[in-house]
Amino acid sequence: MINPFDDIYFMKRALQEAQLAFEKNEVPIGAVIVMNNQIIARAHNLTETLNDVTAHAEMQAFTAAADFLGGKYLKECTLYVTLEPCQMCAGASYWTQIGKIVYGASEEKRGFLVMNTTLHPKTKVIGGVLEEDCSKLLTRFFIEKRNLN
Amino acid sequence: MINPFDDIYFMKRALQEAQLAFEKNEVPIGAVIVMNNQIIARAHNLTETLNDVTAHAEMQAFTAAADFLGGKYLKECTLYVTLEPCQMCAGASYWTQIGKIVYGASEEKRGFLVMNTTLHPKTKVIGGVLEEDCSKLLTRFFIEKRNLN
Repeated sequence: MINPFDDIYFMKRALQEAQLAFEKNEVPIGAVIVMNNQIIARAHNLTETLNDVTAHAEMQAFTAAADFLGGKYLKECTLYVTLEPCQMCAGASYWTQIGKIVYGASEEKRGFLVMNTTLHPKTKVIGGVLEEDCSKLLTRFFIEKRNLN
Repeated sequence: MINPFDDIYFMKRALQEAQLAFEKNEVPIGAVIVMNNQIIARAHNLTETLNDVTAHAEMQAFTAAADFLGGKYLKECTLYVTLEPCQMCAGASYWTQIGKIVYGASEEKRGFLVMNTTLHPKTKVIGGVLEEDCSKLLTRFFIEKRNLN
């Protein structure tokens, strides 16, 4: 039997969040947090809207998921995020003890991999899910931004 | 002429915040952000109260300072925090481009130094200001916690 609720399914939901960010003139990054095949938190980058560098999609999703669950730890959860997390978000994920992180596009300059950020030892990582779609949205955003200036 | 508004003065204010955390049964860590000798943000750890691992004193202080200034960047500011920041908070400081970080006690297990977190190239760091006072408050908290269990 096929499982329609696979990583691609949930990454598409994260991409919908990224699209919402795009429409607000925010760097288009989206995230969802999933537990038992259910989305328990959705968020998109709001750093410009909120004037706050800590308002990355992942940070808001961690806060929302913990609020939903009534507990700080996300051991049974998976974070889907359209761009590889930065060291702040990866550092936050360490404290949540999240079970899995699935990201789309790589961030070769400021991503947690090149920055050598330590994840929680129990956190699994999968990269490159719908990488092209996630990347394309970001590229389109920056091209449009550049053309406006 | 002496300058009464030195690092010790502002670290004492951060310690007052840590004391507020202590009284709420939170791990006692406090922070203030200073610009031109004025405190523009005060915060203390609220991870238990808010059920949110991202509610470290530093994170809240960054958000509050940016809100106060109406801009995301804290280039002219100094963060005073009673404990060496973790990789999440140091990662957040990278995005704020904060001018200086002054911390009290060292965090030898999960501090940004041992974790090799990358700070913004323009961020200066001073550690060990009122180290003993900052440490003592943390030790007292954990001893009282242990005795209660």
